[in-house]
Amino acid sequence: MSLRRIVVLTEGSTNPVTAKTATSVVRYQPDEFVALYDTTQAGKTAGELLGVGGNKPVVASFDEVDSPDTLLIGIAPPGGKLPTAWKSIVLDAIDRGMNIVSGLHDFLSNDPELAKRAAERGVTIHDVRKNDERDVSNRKGIREDCLRIHTVGHDCSIGKMVASVEVARELERQGYDAKFVATGQTGIMIEGDGCPVDCVVSDFLNGAVEKLILANQHHDFLLFEGQGSIAHPRYSAVSAGLLHGCIPHGLIMVYEAGRKEVNGMPGVPLVSLPRLIDAYENLASLHFPTKTIGVAMNSRLLTPDQAEEEREKVSRELGLVVCDVYRHGAGPLVDAVLDLRRELFGELPAKNLVAV
Amino acid sequence: MSLRRIVVLTEGSTNPVTAKTATSVVRYQPDEFVALYDTTQAGKTAGELLGVGGNKPVVASFDEVDSPDTLLIGIAPPGGKLPTAWKSIVLDAIDRGMNIVSGLHDFLSNDPELAKRAAERGVTIHDVRKNDERDVSNRKGIREDCLRIHTVGHDCSIGKMVASVEVARELERQGYDAKFVATGQTGIMIEGDGCPVDCVVSDFLNGAVEKLILANQHHDFLLFEGQGSIAHPRYSAVSAGLLHGCIPHGLIMVYEAGRKEVNGMPGVPLVSLPRLIDAYENLASLHFPTKTIGVAMNSRLLTPDQAEEEREKVSRELGLVVCDVYRHGAGPLVDAVLDLRRELFGELPAKNLVAV
Repeated sequence: MSLRRIVVLTEGSTNPVTAKTATSVVRYQPDEFVALYDTTQAGKTAGELLGVGGNKPVVASFDEVDSPDTLLIGIAPPGGKLPTAWKSIVLDAIDRGMNIVSGLHDFLSNDPELAKRAAERGVTIHDVRKNDERDVSNRKGIREDCLRIHTVGHDCSIGKMVASVEVARELERQGYDAKFVATGQTGIMIEGDGCPVDCVVSDFLNGAVEKLILANQHHDFLLFEGQGSIAHPRYSAVSAGLLHGCIPHGLIMVYEAGRKEVNGMPGVPLVSLPRLIDAYENLASLHFPTKTIGVAMNSRLLTPDQAEEEREKVSRELGLVVCDVYRHGAGPLVDAVLDLRRELFGELPAKNLVAV
Repeated sequence: MSLRRIVVLTEGSTNPVTAKTATSVVRYQPDEFVALYDTTQAGKTAGELLGVGGNKPVVASFDEVDSPDTLLIGIAPPGGKLPTAWKSIVLDAIDRGMNIVSGLHDFLSNDPELAKRAAERGVTIHDVRKNDERDVSNRKGIREDCLRIHTVGHDCSIGKMVASVEVARELERQGYDAKFVATGQTGIMIEGDGCPVDCVVSDFLNGAVEKLILANQHHDFLLFEGQGSIAHPRYSAVSAGLLHGCIPHGLIMVYEAGRKEVNGMPGVPLVSLPRLIDAYENLASLHFPTKTIGVAMNSRLLTPDQAEEEREKVSRELGLVVCDVYRHGAGPLVDAVLDLRRELFGELPAKNLVAV
């Protein structure tokens, strides 16, 4: 497949928190990303605003971009709706023959005007969250010695996807057969497959996740991306179904240092890590024994010194390895994964002859 | 509203377990229920096959029923699909001018043939599970002294809805302002309102349940019907979102004595009650302190002597009041609800001047 030339739409929201989809696409698809589209920040660079993407430009019109062929919606607002002002930008992209990729809950392909225009122009609208999952879990055919690791966390938008990707990539770098299993729109955009679990009808969520095991267990290590938190008042249904659906052997707890309140719910305090780890292990182990093997700390709000201090404190408090996958690499977490594999199955799986 | 004349379709599945929707409609809507439709059991009575409904007949054709005006689909199979053989029966009902009520996941109103025929004949197809929930929880505007009780359980199809209805009705009989809050298709058919939580897109499940609080908290007691179990490998997403969404002050644990394996999953053992109670309280209390106040035992598999023995044993083991709402009435559970109300808010709410 030839490389796409992707413009990422972040109109009015070009920052790493609101535009987390954009930030991850820019980070993990550097060869395909060509520009951000934000008329309020035009002239700046992706690197300045998102911390990734270097000198690639923020533009106010597709005219400023050389041969763009794809427009990707780069935000995931609560409720998932397309801001009204953006629709004309999407129409402009369609008229220029660009394909559309969207992870919103409101499917763009269901909008009669957008659908009609896309059909006339011969471009595709890919709604990443669209699914018709209708299967329940069966707990059959699960490969015993494929190690399933699940990243969980104390909130939304803290780096569960990033931790999953980085651990999977580090395992691969060390020669193991590992796979990042995407469960959200951004992960699916990066990995090219997966299931948008938060958009599955709730009766079929656990079943949809079990199918991800069956589809991927020819790999030796599966890194299941977490969503939300079982402590999140809004999204615990998603997190619980994902937790039971992927039947994890081990959990990696992800948190953002310094965050005090639940994302989007001012005044609602976050649960402490020891309490949360207890709750996750308690719930997961109702049917399959699991334990937390390490902590992925998101230390973006801390100075390097503060980050070291926090890392030591949390490691001592929890008795677990702690690292920031950007600052320290994913090596310490990969060691914990390999230790768990040895503990449960006696030895490590074969490495590829040629490490990637 | 004038009474309907409801024929309940249970073709080939007229038993209390598979036809649990039918059984509850027969039990709780005796004035509207006129016949069961099952060509394989025609000539028998509802009472013989379901244990409720007395001498009302099982028929093999609508010709045997006097002026039926509604066909209600009386089963809820895993996956929620309409068995192919039933479609002709539904078409026959439509042709006779009957309205259709269905709780299946596969919406009958989305079937082009059924929809067309219903439109031509001027009858309605009411898909009870159809919803377009798109709101998240906000934890705002919650009335403090409206007591929220949630029935939870160790499995599907054990009587959580029945326990909720019976406790609400007993509270009303004692003069209190109580409301059964339906969260599944059968409960909605009986109560006339509620939310089909297992058919809500998972990101919006908690929010949909919170809206049920806001819509009903003018009552003093809310009995939130449970769904599935947080220990059920298939449906824990639904159960967890419901648990957090309704922010319960107290839980009633429902179980079926003698059941060993998860419904529909042979070989998967049920979790013990003490373990399950711990898991429910642990998960619920992540954001709102809650405790289990009593146990609703479904003792249909036991003799009266066995039921008494089981009741004493479980009560001793858990230190909680235990009763079978059919055998013993809901009085002991209502006492536990009133005790919790006194404990949390000091006194009981006013009674209606005229008890119902």
